[in-house]
Amino acid sequence: MMKSFFYPKSVAVIGASHEEGKIGHVIFRNLLEKFRGKVYPINPKTEPIFGQKVYPSILDVKGDVDLAIIAVNASIVPKVLEECGKKNVKNVVIISSGFSETGSQKGIELEQEIKNIAKSYGIRIIGPNTIGIFNSENGLDATFFLEKDVKKPKDGNISFFTQSGTIGILALDILAKENIGVAKLVSYGNAIDLNESDFIEYFAKDEKTKIIAGFIESVRNGRKLIDVLRKNKKPVVLLKGGKTVFGSRATSSHTSSLAGDYKVYSNIFKQLNVIEAETWDDLIDYLRILSIGRKANGKRLGIVTNAGGFGVLASDYAFKLGLELPEPSEKLKKKLSKILPSYASTKNPIDITADADVDRYVKVLRILDKSKEFDMLLVIVLVQTPTLTKELFEVLNINKPFSICMVGTKAEEIKKSLDKKLPIFESPERAVKALKVLSELKA
Amino acid sequence: MMKSFFYPKSVAVIGASHEEGKIGHVIFRNLLEKFRGKVYPINPKTEPIFGQKVYPSILDVKGDVDLAIIAVNASIVPKVLEECGKKNVKNVVIISSGFSETGSQKGIELEQEIKNIAKSYGIRIIGPNTIGIFNSENGLDATFFLEKDVKKPKDGNISFFTQSGTIGILALDILAKENIGVAKLVSYGNAIDLNESDFIEYFAKDEKTKIIAGFIESVRNGRKLIDVLRKNKKPVVLLKGGKTVFGSRATSSHTSSLAGDYKVYSNIFKQLNVIEAETWDDLIDYLRILSIGRKANGKRLGIVTNAGGFGVLASDYAFKLGLELPEPSEKLKKKLSKILPSYASTKNPIDITADADVDRYVKVLRILDKSKEFDMLLVIVLVQTPTLTKELFEVLNINKPFSICMVGTKAEEIKKSLDKKLPIFESPERAVKALKVLSELKA
Repeated sequence: MMKSFFYPKSVAVIGASHEEGKIGHVIFRNLLEKFRGKVYPINPKTEPIFGQKVYPSILDVKGDVDLAIIAVNASIVPKVLEECGKKNVKNVVIISSGFSETGSQKGIELEQEIKNIAKSYGIRIIGPNTIGIFNSENGLDATFFLEKDVKKPKDGNISFFTQSGTIGILALDILAKENIGVAKLVSYGNAIDLNESDFIEYFAKDEKTKIIAGFIESVRNGRKLIDVLRKNKKPVVLLKGGKTVFGSRATSSHTSSLAGDYKVYSNIFKQLNVIEAETWDDLIDYLRILSIGRKANGKRLGIVTNAGGFGVLASDYAFKLGLELPEPSEKLKKKLSKILPSYASTKNPIDITADADVDRYVKVLRILDKSKEFDMLLVIVLVQTPTLTKELFEVLNINKPFSICMVGTKAEEIKKSLDKKLPIFESPERAVKALKVLSELKA
Repeated sequence: MMKSFFYPKSVAVIGASHEEGKIGHVIFRNLLEKFRGKVYPINPKTEPIFGQKVYPSILDVKGDVDLAIIAVNASIVPKVLEECGKKNVKNVVIISSGFSETGSQKGIELEQEIKNIAKSYGIRIIGPNTIGIFNSENGLDATFFLEKDVKKPKDGNISFFTQSGTIGILALDILAKENIGVAKLVSYGNAIDLNESDFIEYFAKDEKTKIIAGFIESVRNGRKLIDVLRKNKKPVVLLKGGKTVFGSRATSSHTSSLAGDYKVYSNIFKQLNVIEAETWDDLIDYLRILSIGRKANGKRLGIVTNAGGFGVLASDYAFKLGLELPEPSEKLKKKLSKILPSYASTKNPIDITADADVDRYVKVLRILDKSKEFDMLLVIVLVQTPTLTKELFEVLNINKPFSICMVGTKAEEIKKSLDKKLPIFESPERAVKALKVLSELKA
């Protein structure tokens, strides 16, 4: 069933609008431009849109419709959903808002009405009150944002579920901007039918998905959530909103559901090896490093740096996070000394000093990468020194789990120009924190 | 005395090199291009550099020299420093490295030798082992990085001292990139003479400086530091390196000085109202908001958002940091309701919903800015919605302390295109954390 949401052969956009800027217009345009399948625009006003024949109702479409995207005024949703039922459409995404999230009696009643209709026809629903769904594999961009406003990520191994539309939009954009690929994304809003547990269950089985990520405000079915998390074998990163009294008050204005007892969930998450992101930055940082697909077998971190001060900050933070920063053995120190100038430090951080060039980095990293004394490596690079060039990142070849820290205008330019997918962080502490996640992944 | 370091009439660059890429070449070029004063290149090889007459020794310069920048091999430093003494130069910045920071006997002895020379001539020293000093007011860019590698900030109200050269370079670049102005910056390396306390003391009196920031690894004179901090009336942001056993091991390889008992200092810092930045990101974020020059008189935060999910994250974080998020009074709620659609929330966060336009933001913010129920405001803007434009930031006019959170490619474009100086943050949590700093500033 869930597969039909992400891999439909044909999609109807109910409320495909003639007016630029309208939600139904943008979704239809995104699908028309990208989706590798049939797209039917539905609108009682039947003038063609982008030269495409418009159907007054989904009932007028001749072929099968695997997925309907509803983007009409809330009050019309019951009518068009009923028509979906009659057309035997089994999968519907309701983008429209104006339901229980408004807190109004009318909204709550309307939501109950569409629940009843869906039930009577056996329709599965994502939404209402969502920004849509996205699948990079087949161009299913059923979101109501154009590329000019929100960048869409390239094909990748992360699948993302989110209760909040904002988080969905911004995750797409930031991941695209940071060149982190995405397999699938779903925004599920009020979750009158399918919810976080269903998506985790599906992503756990989905071949394209290697990392599961999500933003949850309220848990709809705690027992099922625990059950699907227990069965899942893939890394799961969760950002939980509504963890505090302030946050839950904010959620109740937002998707009108209780935020749940956070501490209870947080403990369960820990037991189930869920990686909890504390902040928005954490979420993106963790996805950045997990998308590389490595895992550390221990907490022993080796730091290589040409920038003393950043080595110090990274070391302090490694201590704070409970990582180990072992000093190299005498044997290893000797090996390193052979290729380092006398004023370099072979302790950990291994400070290869400000005059380090590409060759010195490569040689030191080769030795450390082969060594059994470290489980993961942090490479700090002050790219602003005259002895270093972009070439370092082109030739960099590390087998251990690693992260890179480089900062500044020049670092950003280099990062943008790289074809290679590298876990680059713009602060020493964030580079360390990401590595900690790799050291805590379950087997 | 310190004023002559930052406001010399004439500067000699000892070791001004003919070779591009050499430290002495770059410093001379930076000064020649930017410094509003006389610059004398000194080099035994007397072919002109950039058409400028080169003096074989500082003793050959006819006029007075207020400041000498030494960028020669460590072994030659005693000789040229002696010449500075004979020339009656009282202020010297020693860029050269190769002293006690190497840990070598030779380096330690050389350092003692230059200390003795300086003492016998009454020369005050910054360094050795520094990236130099910088004053945006008179173009004194005596750092060895060209603009193509490291951006230099525009004139501003922050003055920065740093033991670590890396931190100095990257602070200049990041602050420039983020359009945050800098008054003065000094990297003081091994601090054989002037140290953090001297710079704090000077910046506390310097008219251009409104905010003092610094990176310290080791404290040279604890009593003096406490004394100057106690007398200072300006906000001080400190990032301390070597807080942990890992970090102090890293510093000892770096500037060869004990990191000190961090907890002792941390407690003293708190008592003296020093704002401690825990991470590199914190440091930049705090400077971003402090540079605006506002101060909150309490902890009552009002959040306005068109993006529910980010409102939730900001609220949770405000709770975590001990800020208050009061619900508006009934009277205030009524005022807000008049200009908001029925499905908006007048609780706090005030969720003005995804269809908010510039006008709605402006009206709501005007009401909140006038209200006595909040001490500061957080404005979260999902700029990706079709109803919003860049105009919002042009017309934004808030009198209370505030921060803005906007995220994504479009947010970055808008931020870059704004002439106005706004405290914009790319994560809801960081926007909240910065406001907390404003709520803790001493009167």
